[in-house]
Amino acid sequence: MEAISFEQIAKLLRENDNFLVLMHKSPDGDAAGCAYAMCTLLRNMGKKAQPLCGDEIPSLFSVVSERLPVQQFEPEFIISVDLATEALLSGKALDYAGKIDLCIDHHGMNSGYAKYGYVDAKSASCAEVLKHLFDSMGEEITPLIADALFMGVSTDTGCFKYSNVTPSTHRVAAELMECGADSFGICRRFFDTKTRSKLALEKMMLETIDFAADGEVAFVCVTKKMLQDSGATQGDLDGIAGITKQIEGVKIGITMKEKEDGEFRISVRSSDGVSAADICSSFGGGGHFAAAGCSINGTLEEAKKAIIDASVRTLRGESA
Amino acid sequence: MEAISFEQIAKLLRENDNFLVLMHKSPDGDAAGCAYAMCTLLRNMGKKAQPLCGDEIPSLFSVVSERLPVQQFEPEFIISVDLATEALLSGKALDYAGKIDLCIDHHGMNSGYAKYGYVDAKSASCAEVLKHLFDSMGEEITPLIADALFMGVSTDTGCFKYSNVTPSTHRVAAELMECGADSFGICRRFFDTKTRSKLALEKMMLETIDFAADGEVAFVCVTKKMLQDSGATQGDLDGIAGITKQIEGVKIGITMKEKEDGEFRISVRSSDGVSAADICSSFGGGGHFAAAGCSINGTLEEAKKAIIDASVRTLRGESA
Repeated sequence: MEAISFEQIAKLLRENDNFLVLMHKSPDGDAAGCAYAMCTLLRNMGKKAQPLCGDEIPSLFSVVSERLPVQQFEPEFIISVDLATEALLSGKALDYAGKIDLCIDHHGMNSGYAKYGYVDAKSASCAEVLKHLFDSMGEEITPLIADALFMGVSTDTGCFKYSNVTPSTHRVAAELMECGADSFGICRRFFDTKTRSKLALEKMMLETIDFAADGEVAFVCVTKKMLQDSGATQGDLDGIAGITKQIEGVKIGITMKEKEDGEFRISVRSSDGVSAADICSSFGGGGHFAAAGCSINGTLEEAKKAIIDASVRTLRGESA
Repeated sequence: MEAISFEQIAKLLRENDNFLVLMHKSPDGDAAGCAYAMCTLLRNMGKKAQPLCGDEIPSLFSVVSERLPVQQFEPEFIISVDLATEALLSGKALDYAGKIDLCIDHHGMNSGYAKYGYVDAKSASCAEVLKHLFDSMGEEITPLIADALFMGVSTDTGCFKYSNVTPSTHRVAAELMECGADSFGICRRFFDTKTRSKLALEKMMLETIDFAADGEVAFVCVTKKMLQDSGATQGDLDGIAGITKQIEGVKIGITMKEKEDGEFRISVRSSDGVSAADICSSFGGGGHFAAAGCSINGTLEEAKKAIIDASVRTLRGESA
């Protein structure tokens, strides 16, 4: 992948037409926000542009996605946004693997799959990168673009709460508000609204949280029955991996999800110098230092005992 | 109260010494943050300065409060921060009612109790006002001052989520980070940490939430027994008034707290053009359009029926 500058990106966008903008499977607010922002900007420049995701766009993002009518055309220039690797493409978007002309991303581990690329790992969200790009191009950031980018900036930072937030993140937020972003509505929708089914699921989770190692390890399992009884959707599961880690005194928060055929999918969140990746790698999983995942097969009790034991050993400084 | 400029405030701060900085009872992050920021700045200018609150400073604020050693001296110049009216003073701070030289605040309804005052109702927090004041004075914002102000800015906006956030709020946050504010630690402490007792209380609350008017009214009561059983402290009650309003489809969220002697203290949060103040004023209470409070005496069932009935009437457009 050839690393190019904002000036070179601007030239590519101006010289080409009929853009397809790809996002990763199970799109989050940053992926969807960036795809819709980029397409809106390109259309405002007189181009044809259409976002494409192999999965359905969650209804939560309709505040942005429903404002851009579908365009039909033969794609000529393929862009990806917020896409670390082509392995994250799904469905129809997979047809474009190996054919991506331009990648704009903020994942330091971007696999370099595109012809041209711009990756800024210091940006908390890909939306923050796009904001700087659009500014450098001198193109107007309309209210729809501002909403789409604000959705990315706020959701990728947990509403300006995570450690990835920099002064630039806050300045971008300020400028997007000045461009007409409905920051309050977006924050309320994403950070201050719970569905009845999510509420029901959280109640069940709170009833079954278990602790080990004097409260330094917290464990919860979301069973198939809990999902069924609560009516929880995929969107309701957003953020649940953080619930155990929020509890005061907890250094290792474990959230286990029951899948089909006796598989349990496990998310581990850690702090205070404890490596979640170490715990998960002992079960063939992996991830970041403070947020990792793995799978364990067996009964609920077996899987629970295995992951808690590994966590307690890691806490004690033994190998997981 | 004579409205004065930043220049005039700077002159008062430079010409005087031995400052007492008052905060309101049950201090929140903005009140405490501003008092500690102001005293730190004054001490850096070579003055004596001490914060004073009639109530104990919650341990949650120790990240700031424990870094300023106590100074003993005879106060000569009395400042209040984030104090809308002297009626909100308590304990030892009450001794200074009627004697306040300078008030710096962001409450539009500030009662004008001080000799000199600066009130900026457009600022989301009083900390935002102080940031602009300190900048205009050309004084250095040290990491301790930055932490204290960031605590005020973030807590008074629900971590940049409320409708009071403006572009200026985000710019102030960016600059405080550049001055050394531990924004991640502060956000994690205030917005991503739950005590075991708060968790227990929330579980009990989720078990007893009740709905009316096809889910447009949500109701929960925190009884004395729930407080006892969960071990919840005053700090654990922060934010619980918002829990019912978060639920999707809810236009009126009611949180009732059982007090002594058959009194129930009620918080109402509303949206979609419904006036919480109207509902509460029918019980002799009041507040803002979207957030108000009142008290009702009786049994739990009587109080619950009364406030839900008034809410349903208001929803239907009848008088509460």
